[in-house]
Amino acid sequence: MADVKKVVLAYSGGLDTSVILKWLQDTYECEVVTFTADLGQGEEVEPARAKAQAMGVKEIYIDDLREEFVRDFVYPMFRANTVYEGEYLLGTSIARPLIAKRLIEIANETGADAISHGATGKGNDQVRFELGAYALKPGVKVIAPWREWDLLSREKLMDYAEKHAIPIERHGKKKSPYSMDANLLHISYEGGVLEDTWTEHEEDMWKWTVSPENAPDKPTYLELTYRKGDIVAIDGVEMTPATVLATLNKIGGENGIGRLDIVENRYVGMKSRGCYETPGGTIMLRAHRAIESITLDREVAHLKDELMPKYASLIYTGYWWSPERLMLQQMIDASQAHVNGVVRLKLYKGNVIVTGRKSDDSLFDANIATFEEDGGAYNQADAAGFIKLNALRMRIAAGKGRKLF
Amino acid sequence: MADVKKVVLAYSGGLDTSVILKWLQDTYECEVVTFTADLGQGEEVEPARAKAQAMGVKEIYIDDLREEFVRDFVYPMFRANTVYEGEYLLGTSIARPLIAKRLIEIANETGADAISHGATGKGNDQVRFELGAYALKPGVKVIAPWREWDLLSREKLMDYAEKHAIPIERHGKKKSPYSMDANLLHISYEGGVLEDTWTEHEEDMWKWTVSPENAPDKPTYLELTYRKGDIVAIDGVEMTPATVLATLNKIGGENGIGRLDIVENRYVGMKSRGCYETPGGTIMLRAHRAIESITLDREVAHLKDELMPKYASLIYTGYWWSPERLMLQQMIDASQAHVNGVVRLKLYKGNVIVTGRKSDDSLFDANIATFEEDGGAYNQADAAGFIKLNALRMRIAAGKGRKLF
Amino acid sequence: MADVKKVVLAYSGGLDTSVILKWLQDTYECEVVTFTADLGQGEEVEPARAKAQAMGVKEIYIDDLREEFVRDFVYPMFRANTVYEGEYLLGTSIARPLIAKRLIEIANETGADAISHGATGKGNDQVRFELGAYALKPGVKVIAPWREWDLLSREKLMDYAEKHAIPIERHGKKKSPYSMDANLLHISYEGGVLEDTWTEHEEDMWKWTVSPENAPDKPTYLELTYRKGDIVAIDGVEMTPATVLATLNKIGGENGIGRLDIVENRYVGMKSRGCYETPGGTIMLRAHRAIESITLDREVAHLKDELMPKYASLIYTGYWWSPERLMLQQMIDASQAHVNGVVRLKLYKGNVIVTGRKSDDSLFDANIATFEEDGGAYNQADAAGFIKLNALRMRIAAGKGRKLF
Amino acid sequence: MADVKKVVLAYSGGLDTSVILKWLQDTYECEVVTFTADLGQGEEVEPARAKAQAMGVKEIYIDDLREEFVRDFVYPMFRANTVYEGEYLLGTSIARPLIAKRLIEIANETGADAISHGATGKGNDQVRFELGAYALKPGVKVIAPWREWDLLSREKLMDYAEKHAIPIERHGKKKSPYSMDANLLHISYEGGVLEDTWTEHEEDMWKWTVSPENAPDKPTYLELTYRKGDIVAIDGVEMTPATVLATLNKIGGENGIGRLDIVENRYVGMKSRGCYETPGGTIMLRAHRAIESITLDREVAHLKDELMPKYASLIYTGYWWSPERLMLQQMIDASQAHVNGVVRLKLYKGNVIVTGRKSDDSLFDANIATFEEDGGAYNQADAAGFIKLNALRMRIAAGKGRKLF
Repeated sequence: MADVKKVVLAYSGGLDTSVILKWLQDTYECEVVTFTADLGQGEEVEPARAKAQAMGVKEIYIDDLREEFVRDFVYPMFRANTVYEGEYLLGTSIARPLIAKRLIEIANETGADAISHGATGKGNDQVRFELGAYALKPGVKVIAPWREWDLLSREKLMDYAEKHAIPIERHGKKKSPYSMDANLLHISYEGGVLEDTWTEHEEDMWKWTVSPENAPDKPTYLELTYRKGDIVAIDGVEMTPATVLATLNKIGGENGIGRLDIVENRYVGMKSRGCYETPGGTIMLRAHRAIESITLDREVAHLKDELMPKYASLIYTGYWWSPERLMLQQMIDASQAHVNGVVRLKLYKGNVIVTGRKSDDSLFDANIATFEEDGGAYNQADAAGFIKLNALRMRIAAGKGRKLF
Repeated sequence: MADVKKVVLAYSGGLDTSVILKWLQDTYECEVVTFTADLGQGEEVEPARAKAQAMGVKEIYIDDLREEFVRDFVYPMFRANTVYEGEYLLGTSIARPLIAKRLIEIANETGADAISHGATGKGNDQVRFELGAYALKPGVKVIAPWREWDLLSREKLMDYAEKHAIPIERHGKKKSPYSMDANLLHISYEGGVLEDTWTEHEEDMWKWTVSPENAPDKPTYLELTYRKGDIVAIDGVEMTPATVLATLNKIGGENGIGRLDIVENRYVGMKSRGCYETPGGTIMLRAHRAIESITLDREVAHLKDELMPKYASLIYTGYWWSPERLMLQQMIDASQAHVNGVVRLKLYKGNVIVTGRKSDDSLFDANIATFEEDGGAYNQADAAGFIKLNALRMRIAAGKGRKLF
Repeated sequence: MADVKKVVLAYSGGLDTSVILKWLQDTYECEVVTFTADLGQGEEVEPARAKAQAMGVKEIYIDDLREEFVRDFVYPMFRANTVYEGEYLLGTSIARPLIAKRLIEIANETGADAISHGATGKGNDQVRFELGAYALKPGVKVIAPWREWDLLSREKLMDYAEKHAIPIERHGKKKSPYSMDANLLHISYEGGVLEDTWTEHEEDMWKWTVSPENAPDKPTYLELTYRKGDIVAIDGVEMTPATVLATLNKIGGENGIGRLDIVENRYVGMKSRGCYETPGGTIMLRAHRAIESITLDREVAHLKDELMPKYASLIYTGYWWSPERLMLQQMIDASQAHVNGVVRLKLYKGNVIVTGRKSDDSLFDANIATFEEDGGAYNQADAAGFIKLNALRMRIAAGKGRKLF
Repeated sequence: MADVKKVVLAYSGGLDTSVILKWLQDTYECEVVTFTADLGQGEEVEPARAKAQAMGVKEIYIDDLREEFVRDFVYPMFRANTVYEGEYLLGTSIARPLIAKRLIEIANETGADAISHGATGKGNDQVRFELGAYALKPGVKVIAPWREWDLLSREKLMDYAEKHAIPIERHGKKKSPYSMDANLLHISYEGGVLEDTWTEHEEDMWKWTVSPENAPDKPTYLELTYRKGDIVAIDGVEMTPATVLATLNKIGGENGIGRLDIVENRYVGMKSRGCYETPGGTIMLRAHRAIESITLDREVAHLKDELMPKYASLIYTGYWWSPERLMLQQMIDASQAHVNGVVRLKLYKGNVIVTGRKSDDSLFDANIATFEEDGGAYNQADAAGFIKLNALRMRIAAGKGRKLF
């Protein structure tokens, strides 16, 4: 057992991390600092204070990180049109490095030598927390109780809570059968019936979105204004990043947008099924591609597309605070210098339909694109030479009798 | 002017290629062989015979290529989850290499020394036809009338037709304002009001799909059976590739699925707006990712994702008949050996929702994935070492004072 | 401590693995099967038999794997022009998967439930052995004594040997200060003075090559014949893969070829300095690029080059027996169908100089390449259109005032 | 024939570009501005002035661009360890964008509406000049006489020169049988006997380097100091970029370093043989990899290696002035922030041998790397979990009976 003097715990105020708090105090006989973040998960964070105090915690951090989260994490990620394995918008992955960063900042402020979190040994989150922590404070000790203790079933956890007088809230509500995570970008659901990949997800699982069936029969139109690849206004009204995302979540959720049911590959090696609600993010991805479609050079766009899976994997696997992610980010950010303009969208029962895009930085040239006479803007004869030379290597090979198949 | 004895013309039977037919006969004083293909465009091909005969053509090829198209072109492409620029399913691109191949086969059969097509000098299709032709018959001459003649406006074309007694069908229907292309995979629309990227596409443009608004209020459920990455049955009924795609087009179209409105980057250098209806293909892409999600190894899947943009570009730019596309295809096809199983989908007003996937080749391991006790299937303590060593290079750097940013 | 009944040990016959043999018998109270391979390391393998027998081993495997090693591992790797981090020819990395495979085959034959090896917990070799073993026999137990025991210094090891009457050979020769590994592809040196990256390696460290200074003053000329990317003959004499490599090692070593002194990045996270002698491999890399230069299509060659670093990393990090390596190999092997012909080399004091290459499958076309009049083989005017359209996207951007920097 | 008022000609002062000068005056009846650059080609540029004046040129630019060339083009390229097709150091390719830039700057200064160059229609240089020109001044006219005129043989050219009284220097020296290009980075040779890929290059072709055979029998030691990836001092003496390269050329050339004989793939589609002398560049490449080996993070280095072939192709094919090259450059430059330190090299008869590297920014950690006891710097037990989880996906697959091959 490592010798620990003070540990900063990522504390939600819920049962699991309350048990961890107590367990840390008992097992390591160390002081615990709690850190509770409002990342837009939609639950009160202030109640965590009283609970922590009740367990004797003296240093309590409760931070509203919503703006930082969207501005410095979500927005940069969407500049790359980031999608993991073709589907997943990385809602959980992108919040972890911010929590890791705050844990380390607080450790530095409070003189703590360790951090702790409530992520299990089976998932990606432990990796994301810890890679971030080690990258930012290489000598930090990390305590991951789920990898150390023997409270591996819910029953044992409850027993421990009862034995140590940790208040278990019984708000009448049945405990959700799902393991969930929420922040301003999404909610995720794992476990329960989802552990059979053939079983359909249940309608009452979803929290943020109505079903397409229950969405309004009339479409909603939206205009999103981009500046350097980021949304700065909705329908002409400038707003902060977190407000943009909250607004899109609301509108998207009302229109049945952003549900996803996938099987993904975890970094620790197994496949896992997850359901996700990402209403705002789903809108953002579509709209960002639309504004890029008129403002980005072709080869820049293609290079971004080729590097995106790598970038997405880096975020998924917890390497936000790595030099290679930062290097890629430099390139991605540089590509966004001219990604300005407006995208018009139509939202309707789960659909995000692009109906227009315009920009002072548009590279779309109607004179050249037109099928009508173009007054010499484009010389069709050029195409003959273009094709001839692009074909030359293949013509030489075929001419020498090389068979293709 | 090249000395041409016999030319095979890709002949639709429509006005444009009829004018080309006549123009070839007059300009090159050569014999013309016509080739008309049924690729599932939804128009009769047989009428082309009488028209060609009327213009004195002696060698007339009319081929039903629908099965070959889907089996040897569409299916291999979908094995790679191919999408161009994040959105476009390559419906036009994938048909061109088949036409190029048939043109050359017919040239070889009829002893023709040239081929001709009706694609303009501004678009991608000329490139796709000609790269294919040169790769398969390096000495072939290519006549691209739109790059040579001066009939560059519709008026001039009509005049020419009238002067040469080429029948212009006036079936009461107003001529579509769009430049369109159709085959079993999609219809495309370009030109007209679409040349302003801010103008919304018109509802009455779409031919194959109802709008999400007009789709049924009740969802349709579907089960697709995969064998080696290809769909072989719908709802348990085995069918040929072309029948699969036709069936999915019908069901998808009825449910408002597969509309797309994008600005894309052409190979010849300009941006161009296109609208596409790809009902079956949209379903296939989603379902293929779903079956791969349980049957494909993680790193194989990621490697495919990293190479996909390159592969998509090769198809978009006309390099189907290139050695590098064939090399990539070998790898893609090899990856599909275990992509077997069933995907259940729910279609509803434009949405394609995956609700289940199962496979005898599934790599999903519920014992390991579970959040419940797993009886030792997975040792959580392993994760500590995994994270420590993955973090080591970053810890060393941070320990030596290297700053991340 | 895992319950182990029988373990297959990768046994060199040297002190370290002899101590391991004894330690396994004592610690696990299990039967030990020894496996000793001749991979061309240049030491007798037969003496290992008597030593194993002396320690009571009943099942002793001594295999000559030289041909299999070169044919199925070294040759496929060189088809990709594989180099790790721009310099390292992967001599150690490529031998490990073969040893892993034989360990598992022998475990299956002898009914063993575990394997063991003498690689430390700091290096790449443990990873290469174990990833291979787990991929081929997922339930196998792996015993890595260096990660388990406390004999972490040479002194403790010697004490243990003495205490257990393990014969320590004292052949007069001073023990090498380097940690070495050898097989038909290379010898590696680590440790000792090399642990300071600024200290020059010592001349008397090298075993296989003379220094360039001591190499002959007259060059040696060689002709290598390739079939499907593999060398099948030297100076017109057909020979087996292992004989090819042994021959090239001899000639290369005499000419001072193939020394390397680098700092590389290990998979487990630290940087490490290694010196390598790879005389034959150094010749093979240069010659293979030369034969590809006339027989491979440009885009195929470029695609191979883009994927090579990934492929090299897979081998370096021990993923030979992974589905992604096998998928890449399919593509690489497919690319070699026409890589036939002859390369002429001049070897001189450390230099490998290509002086000629020829092939019936050459794509070099002197008629087109010539600076003299080419009789119309190439139409220079085509280049104008080629350039114009390749420039179009940049001209449009500049025309709209887009600044490059 | 385009209507041209004033054209800036890239003018060497030699026969070919003198003929072009005259031909432009006659054919386009336009004013000609000459531009002659000292890029370190080793020939006097001043004589070009009198020749131009003699032909009536009024605006004559003669620029010493050596520092700009090395600082802004050669150095940035070497930061990426750039090599085209595994061998070629891009000596010609990297000079062209600078010439293109100056042509356009001069066009803007002199009010010229066109540029002209002496590159043929078969090579890469025309593409490099013209893509650069179009990217920097989209409306510029480009005159490439070799693609337009009929002086396609040397005889016709000489006739034209004689007829128009263009002085043909007859300095006794036999005209070189090779087509050559030189600048501070290299000399290239094409044509002549090199058009047969099997014929050995001739010893007397080489201009800058002695043969390894004729190099000194004693090695030369060198220390190169790096700052942010660039060499700033040799043997402790700070010098400018051009002086660094000139110095390395001299020392390298004396030691027989930097000869290359390859067949490469041109952008316009054919294979072409070239011989190159790049003494300084060959040293720089090796040394840069050495300094990166201790200062660069592993994943940053690998990402650079994966992108290098793409970056090299962009330079080879003339896309220096493209947004995608600039985007990649941002990433490459960012990676060099800590690439500081000293590399010690031994040069001997064609060999560049790294014998040491040191840096205050070194990430090499002797405590962790050591094979001796490390006092807990590295916990070997971590490796077990690391391997187990990296193997998990393969163990699951094998456990379910999935065959690898």
